[in-house]
Order: sequence, then C-alpha cells, then structure tokens
Amino acid sequence: MVDQLTLYSAKFCPFSQRAELALKEAKIPHKKFHIDLKDKPEWYAPKVNPASKVPAVTYGGPDVHPSDPSPESAKITESLVLIQFFADLAPESDLLPKDALGKARIRFFLETVSSKIQPNLGRWALGSGSYDAFFEALDAIQDQLPPVEKGKYIFGEEFTLADISIAPFLGRTLLVQLRNGIGKFDKQEAKLGWEHFQGPKYERLRQYIDDVAARPSWQC
Amino acid sequence: MVDQLTLYSAKFCPFSQRAELALKEAKIPHKKFHIDLKDKPEWYAPKVNPASKVPAVTYGGPDVHPSDPSPESAKITESLVLIQFFADLAPESDLLPKDALGKARIRFFLETVSSKIQPNLGRWALGSGSYDAFFEALDAIQDQLPPVEKGKYIFGEEFTLADISIAPFLGRTLLVQLRNGIGKFDKQEAKLGWEHFQGPKYERLRQYIDDVAARPSWQC
Ligand SMILES: N[C@@H](CCC(=O)N[C@@H](CS)C(=O)NCC(=O)O)C(=O)O
Ligand SMILES: N[C@@H](CCC(=O)N[C@@H](CS)C(=O)NCC(=O)O)C(=O)O
Repeated sequence: MVDQLTLYSAKFCPFSQRAELALKEAKIPHKKFHIDLKDKPEWYAPKVNPASKVPAVTYGGPDVHPSDPSPESAKITESLVLIQFFADLAPESDLLPKDALGKARIRFFLETVSSKIQPNLGRWALGSGSYDAFFEALDAIQDQLPPVEKGKYIFGEEFTLADISIAPFLGRTLLVQLRNGIGKFDKQEAKLGWEHFQGPKYERLRQYIDDVAARPSWQC
Repeated sequence: MVDQLTLYSAKFCPFSQRAELALKEAKIPHKKFHIDLKDKPEWYAPKVNPASKVPAVTYGGPDVHPSDPSPESAKITESLVLIQFFADLAPESDLLPKDALGKARIRFFLETVSSKIQPNLGRWALGSGSYDAFFEALDAIQDQLPPVEKGKYIFGEEFTLADISIAPFLGRTLLVQLRNGIGKFDKQEAKLGWEHFQGPKYERLRQYIDDVAARPSWQC
C-alpha cells in the first residue's frame, strides 16, 4: 500500500522536469497536475506551496482530486529535496548509491549544480549572464563525464540524481534556447554559441545529452 | 573496522563547527587537523580541497598523518554534504530520521538555511546586510521551534542535522558578534539589536541556544 503522491508541475519548467524524471525513473505511482504559471489556481499557494512555485508534492492523506488538496497530506517543495525524497522512497531504483561515500559524491555534485552550474547555464538567456560563463558551465559538466566506454552518465553506467539535476537545464538552454535563438542574449553571439557547441570540443557532452534524451523518462 | 576519517577545520569557522558537531554527535572516530586560514599549509589546496576552504574531510586510504594526505583517500567538502555523510555513516545516531518524509523535511530545512537564513544572519556583521533582514532570519528560526514542552529542538526531542546546520551561525552572530559589538554593522544599531534579542520576544530562541550549547558536542 503506497501513500498517495501528487506532483504539481509546469510545462517547460526544468525544476519540474527534475521531479518528473525522478518519479518516472523510480517508478513511483503518482498523479500529476499541471499548473499554468501565467494563471495559477487561487488555491495553489495557500493549499500547496506558500512560495507559489513548482514543483511541489503532496504526500499521504486521503486520495483527493489534485485541485482540492487535503490539509492532511504532507507538502514538499524544492526540486532537489524532492528528487532525494523519491530516491529514498525507492531505494531499489539506484538513483542514489547505497553507500555513504557514493551518496556524498552525488550530494556534492548537486550542491555544485545548484550554487554554480545551473545559475551560469540559465543566466545567459535571461540577459544577466555571459557567453563565457555559459561555456564554463558546459565545460564543468563535460569534465565530469567519464569516457563513453566507462559509462554513459555522470557517475558511470548508473543514471543517478546527478544526471537528473542537470539534464533538464542542458535540454532547455541548449536544445530550446540556444538552438532556436530564444532568449535575451545577443542573437549573433547565440548563433556563434550554437556553432561552438556543435564543434568537436563538445562531442562527449552532445553524446551525453542524446543518451539522456533516449531514456523513456525523458518522453512526455 | 572503520575507515580512517580526518577533518580539516578552522577555529571560529561556523561551517567547520557544523562538521565537528555532527562527527561528535554521530560518535564517529576521527582525527582533527586545524587549518590556520591566515597561513594555510601549501599542501592544503592541492592535496585536500582545491577550493581551499574548510571544512574538508579525507576518508579511507592509509592511516597517514593529516599533514601528509594520501592520494588514495576520498576527499569530501561542503559542510552540508559532510553532515549528511556523517549521518549516513552512523544511521543509529538519529541525526536524520529513518523515514523518507522525515528526511525530506530536514533537507528542506537545510535548503532554506543555506539559501536564505544563514546568508541573512551573516551579512549584517559583514556590512552588507541589515538589522531587519537579520531579525527576519531570527524570526524564521524561532518560528520553526516547537513549544518547549513538545521538544527542545527544531524537529522536537531529537537533535538533528537541522539544529547542526543553524546553531553555529546563531552562536557566532549572536553570542560573539552582536553581544560584543564585533562587526561592520552600525555599533548603535548593534547595541539596540542585542537589547532586542534579550527581550521577551526571543525567549524561546534564547532557550534553544542554551539547550544546544549545553550539549557535550558544543564543547571544544
Ligand atoms: N528552487 C526551486 C525553483 C523552482 C522555480 O523557480 N520554479 C519556477 C518555474 S520553472 C516557478 O514556479 N516560478 C514561479 C512563477 O513563475 O510564478 C526548485 O528547485 O524547485
Ligand atoms: N560552502 C562552504 C563554505 C566554507 C567556508 O566558506 N569556509 C571559510 C571559513 S569559515 C573558508 O574556508 N574560507 C576560505 C579562506 O578563509 O581562505 C561550506 O559550507 O563548507
């Protein structure tokens, strides 16, 4: 008997995609409710997440409709907290290694992603970052990747929370924003950036993105 | 047979104190090596922590002297990663609850501490914060505390990683900086701040700080 779990998420939100990937990879039964960030339901902040952001989860309590959240369920927010929660709920999923040292290595990676890599990836297209900081962030990720023959993913053959923490931001910034020139960056710089990313230097990173995107959890 | 564990820390460093508290509470055998931040040993950055910060830990490998770290040991940094590592090494210590939801609640607290509370506590005395933001951070902590009869600590009767994440910063900013007027804040404002903290509003928070400071792990 599994406790009810409802995920509130939004389309094109990379933080929500983290939660969705982890839930699917962990094979945790759940309901999903789509929040329109441009027109949030009035009950969302008071009844689910006072910070009024997605993703958020209700866990336990009665099996209500997502639009009528129960005061009896636990409310959990913050994408990196959520993906660790899902890994703890489904330890057999290997999203986190079993040993303390392996877990610490992944948590250090999550800390680096949230304090440095993800902000630098995101800011360029938001108009407050730079080409250089963006490519430094890409370099930092590519440097973490093992040679293909040692494993497809950041920590080797196992797809882990490390991959889940960063892949949605690679997808969004590279495949959506940079490829299509969508963002507050200089359009000419963005064009050069896309060409640079297509060049030999980023072969390993492109392979990584292909490998992640080939997983069933990446599909909608 | 426990793997060797060496903690590199500095006096008066609240991040290091987090690691020391967790190691003592978890009763994990370890060596401690003091790093003088004003005169760091030249081997520290290349051999232990490339970011050249404390705390850091070497784990496993041969039982060498701390001043001669082995390339064979794992190197772990970031205080919040370290305290979770220690909790995972010593699950019987109750620094983290056993259930996934309890863990998620503590991790959400750690996330709030690191993104909001700790910066706002620290910045006032560094000259870049404000009286108001400082007291908002105190309020945020006090609001988390249960009534005394329900438990001494943030999550009740159990002393957890939540307490470890914040207590060193309360100790430093209140009992060292504010009480003694040491910092880049306005000295008159700091005096008023200390009086405000002594007033009836913060009775629960003062009790909390006393309770934490009474634990053997708080002693040097
Ligand atoms: N730190 C949060 C960030 C979540 C976040 O910023 N989500 C955005 C959408 S991608 C949001 O909900 N923004 C509020 C809004 O658009 O009103 C997490 O990791 O979950
Ligand atoms: N995010 C780090 C911060 C550690 C940190 O900033 N430590 C300070 C001392 S309290 C440090 O080592 N600073 C480098 C220096 O003083 O050279 C952590 O949580 O461990």
